[in-house]
Amino acid sequence: MSVILKEYERIIIGIDPGTNIMGYGILGVKGKKPVNIAMGVIQLSKFESHYMRLNRIYTRVLGLVEQYLPDEMAIEAPFFGKNVQSMLKLGRAQGVAMAAALSRQVPITEYEPRKIKMAITGSGAASKEQVREMIRRQLNLSVEELPVLLDATDALAAALCHFYESSRPQFEKGCRSWKEFIAKNPDKVSR
Amino acid sequence: MSVILKEYERIIIGIDPGTNIMGYGILGVKGKKPVNIAMGVIQLSKFESHYMRLNRIYTRVLGLVEQYLPDEMAIEAPFFGKNVQSMLKLGRAQGVAMAAALSRQVPITEYEPRKIKMAITGSGAASKEQVREMIRRQLNLSVEELPVLLDATDALAAALCHFYESSRPQFEKGCRSWKEFIAKNPDKVSR
Repeated sequence: MSVILKEYERIIIGIDPGTNIMGYGILGVKGKKPVNIAMGVIQLSKFESHYMRLNRIYTRVLGLVEQYLPDEMAIEAPFFGKNVQSMLKLGRAQGVAMAAALSRQVPITEYEPRKIKMAITGSGAASKEQVREMIRRQLNLSVEELPVLLDATDALAAALCHFYESSRPQFEKGCRSWKEFIAKNPDKVSR
Repeated sequence: MSVILKEYERIIIGIDPGTNIMGYGILGVKGKKPVNIAMGVIQLSKFESHYMRLNRIYTRVLGLVEQYLPDEMAIEAPFFGKNVQSMLKLGRAQGVAMAAALSRQVPITEYEPRKIKMAITGSGAASKEQVREMIRRQLNLSVEELPVLLDATDALAAALCHFYESSRPQFEKGCRSWKEFIAKNPDKVSR
């Protein structure tokens, strides 16, 4: 496995955490281009106990981290929810997934769902089906390669969003905003 | 260390998770009596990044689990909070602490703050100072042995609450309530 992974300049694991289903996507970067390595879901609804679910998330995410040795983790993280109860549960699910990454020194970046949809489809209000279709086109996947569950493509979308965000020129130049980038690179501005 | 730990019939780790300070308490059971083994706090406010804090919680809790080899974890878990934002953060802090226990197959039981206060002081509305004083008396600690920060005694209180709860006779007899216990053990009822 590690021989195959050496082909990639960079590997990003995308996670779409949920308390019933957790999606994951492994994105490789080859010749500066994003490539799908793997995607899937972790089924949690079969476990009745909350702790069994958390344990499953931790074990599976740790397994993915050890198998694919990602350089970074991108996580879809809604900042608002229906109520405090559901946010506490979601926070726990996110927490155990993050612990799996942190235990292997994998840095984490989180993205709001709107931000991911915007990066992939150009619209922050895009449907999950639209996200899947754009993922398919941008990664040159056949329709057959797409998973049935949209949580998998959502997770891969988080990884792809992180790839786009971290590949933007202002980040390469160590700038925090376009304004700063323009100030530092006046020759790059076309008037 | 393991030689000393063998003196105890059972070891319970209590956790009071917070996003600024996390308290922990290690409770041993010796001759059916609860004994304080260790307590303290994990300072988090010095870390600016949210992930650094989560990483610190995970690493330290895992360290405690590996050092004291607890049989169970008791965690103070409020079910209601000010807002969804703070509950998400609290959920993450709880999640990484739980992941540390789950990664070593340590079962977790959570208790509401009211429940812990009730078990230790007899009042669900007791102050943290009252909880500390009752912990001191019930575990025969001197005033000097008490930590300055109340988060440590709060965590030990969670462990002691779990000890009391799991030592109640209806649990020993495999009953879920006093009603069931009485039905199964009519001879134990004094009239």
